[in-house]
Amino acid sequence: MSQKKFHVAVVGATGAVGQQMIETLQKRSFPIGEISLLSSSRSAGKEIEFNGEKVIVQEARPESFEGVDIALFSAGGSISKKLAPEAVKRGAIVVDNTSAFRMDENVPLVVPEVNESDLHGHNGIIANPNCSTIQMVAALEPIREAFGLKKVVVSTYQAVSGAGAAAIEELHTQTEAILNNEAPKAEILPVKGAEKHYQIAFNAIPQIDVFTENGFTYEEMKMINETKKIMHMPELKVSATCVRLPIAVGHSESVYIEIDQEGVTAEQIQKLLSNAPGIVLQDNPSEQIYPMPADCVGKNDVFVGRIRKDLDEDKGFHMWVVSDNLLKGAAWNSVQIAESLIRLGIVK
Amino acid sequence: MSQKKFHVAVVGATGAVGQQMIETLQKRSFPIGEISLLSSSRSAGKEIEFNGEKVIVQEARPESFEGVDIALFSAGGSISKKLAPEAVKRGAIVVDNTSAFRMDENVPLVVPEVNESDLHGHNGIIANPNCSTIQMVAALEPIREAFGLKKVVVSTYQAVSGAGAAAIEELHTQTEAILNNEAPKAEILPVKGAEKHYQIAFNAIPQIDVFTENGFTYEEMKMINETKKIMHMPELKVSATCVRLPIAVGHSESVYIEIDQEGVTAEQIQKLLSNAPGIVLQDNPSEQIYPMPADCVGKNDVFVGRIRKDLDEDKGFHMWVVSDNLLKGAAWNSVQIAESLIRLGIVK
Repeated sequence: MSQKKFHVAVVGATGAVGQQMIETLQKRSFPIGEISLLSSSRSAGKEIEFNGEKVIVQEARPESFEGVDIALFSAGGSISKKLAPEAVKRGAIVVDNTSAFRMDENVPLVVPEVNESDLHGHNGIIANPNCSTIQMVAALEPIREAFGLKKVVVSTYQAVSGAGAAAIEELHTQTEAILNNEAPKAEILPVKGAEKHYQIAFNAIPQIDVFTENGFTYEEMKMINETKKIMHMPELKVSATCVRLPIAVGHSESVYIEIDQEGVTAEQIQKLLSNAPGIVLQDNPSEQIYPMPADCVGKNDVFVGRIRKDLDEDKGFHMWVVSDNLLKGAAWNSVQIAESLIRLGIVK
Repeated sequence: MSQKKFHVAVVGATGAVGQQMIETLQKRSFPIGEISLLSSSRSAGKEIEFNGEKVIVQEARPESFEGVDIALFSAGGSISKKLAPEAVKRGAIVVDNTSAFRMDENVPLVVPEVNESDLHGHNGIIANPNCSTIQMVAALEPIREAFGLKKVVVSTYQAVSGAGAAAIEELHTQTEAILNNEAPKAEILPVKGAEKHYQIAFNAIPQIDVFTENGFTYEEMKMINETKKIMHMPELKVSATCVRLPIAVGHSESVYIEIDQEGVTAEQIQKLLSNAPGIVLQDNPSEQIYPMPADCVGKNDVFVGRIRKDLDEDKGFHMWVVSDNLLKGAAWNSVQIAESLIRLGIVK
């Protein structure tokens, strides 16, 4: 890491992901000379402690980015669309955690373990992929590299924190109501702006984000399209079913894959993943060792277990992939991109 | 239905499934002349109301089955192994809800909507399939019949009630503890007799039943083997990943299938399932209509939605299948088998 210190801005500093970004920057001892914590006008004025000093949250405006080197955005797509170009105009590099620019062909979509070198092609903005995509491609890339990859069928088990801090609050309030034999109120999930809201406590909602015309949700299409872009595999067959569950933090994924090479064993894939960057193998059925969301909270890694060969398809394998959706799925991957930008000399 | 009335025994009458069997027999106005409610010695002596009269639960013994026409067993595999043959010896037909006899080639394994005629081949015992298998094959059979079926990849989202009433209690106790910032106690899930127990509240446990040597759990192998047996398709490619979730009642399944026929549309499958026995189609994304476990509780049907064609495989389709695991997954399917036995004249 360079000795130089940088002026970093966090946009959406009071949100669920923004708070994790601020914590991660401190934990990583990120080389910060100056920090700007930015938010909507509604949250401006709040005080947040950063490296032992109180910082007052300011309303994010175009001029907030004067002198900023790196701006981490996580305040919703419309804010990114409006302010990211303003930050770039003022010389900042933007790492954007919304879906605003992810599929823009001029914007690299990066998971450092997978496609760090795509950062060189940036035009001021770098997109952080969707949380459920990041943990999956981190687990798939070592397999693709060693054995090729043809097909992915994923079913997700996603935590409510992916829908923000208000969704965590809704899960808790509904859970308390049901335990007290009261009717739970649903006002946020599955999608805040949608017409209908459903109980998430003790339930499973097979809708994350709104539906597209082909019957898949946007969340599912994000997983499909982003996986192809990050892995540089437009021809990869990917399908996804995304489900919201009564879990506060930690996304899990049941992933079925078909690889290119014949005769590969589950043990080979286990060995591969036990040495892969950013991956922790937790896979010992006889000791009941496998990843679970309750164990992954607060950790940066992607945890993989339940790796087994399909009983019919020689090229088919199943696995269970778990990660903290606020960290590797969002805040940590964004900070990790910022670290890569410095290490690669892209931000100087 | 015959005018004759039958002597019915329920073994495991005080358990989560036994209670639903007793309720279902009453709701269906099952032609009962005499009811015997049987249990372990531990639960014997309890009083249960049946059709307005109080019935005292008796300890299940071989002689309990004298004069019994139909015995519904749901008291664990070891009880079934010991007492089902005793019931048969005394002239009863046994409908067994445990895994004790399911893969016995002399025992029909029946979901009435799929393979009712297998009942004719019984030798005194009929097995009720595993809860997660029943709802899936009910949804798959109409598709197989119309378009053929080659491959099934299922990921389950299973409720704790599949592990009995004590597991529901554990979910509630743990949930209360966590909401009160206390450490949750885990003593039952994932498997009561296993060495390690894990928190289920606000978590996902990718283990149901114990592990087999191939890395799949018994629950997963049940889904694989039972599906092939019920559908009479030993060549069908089936794989399963079974996951326990913090939901009291209602199993959900993300099912990916590949059919035989080319050029089939999602609309064709929707139309097929909207007319299929035991199936309720809930599939209208633009109105946010899809099945959810919280909505299926107390209903006998299997609910199917999110039907969509794979974006890469012409023969590939995805769907979301939900049912009350204590009813269609257990009690209702058992009572339904008993009704079939009478209608087909097998029990006279």
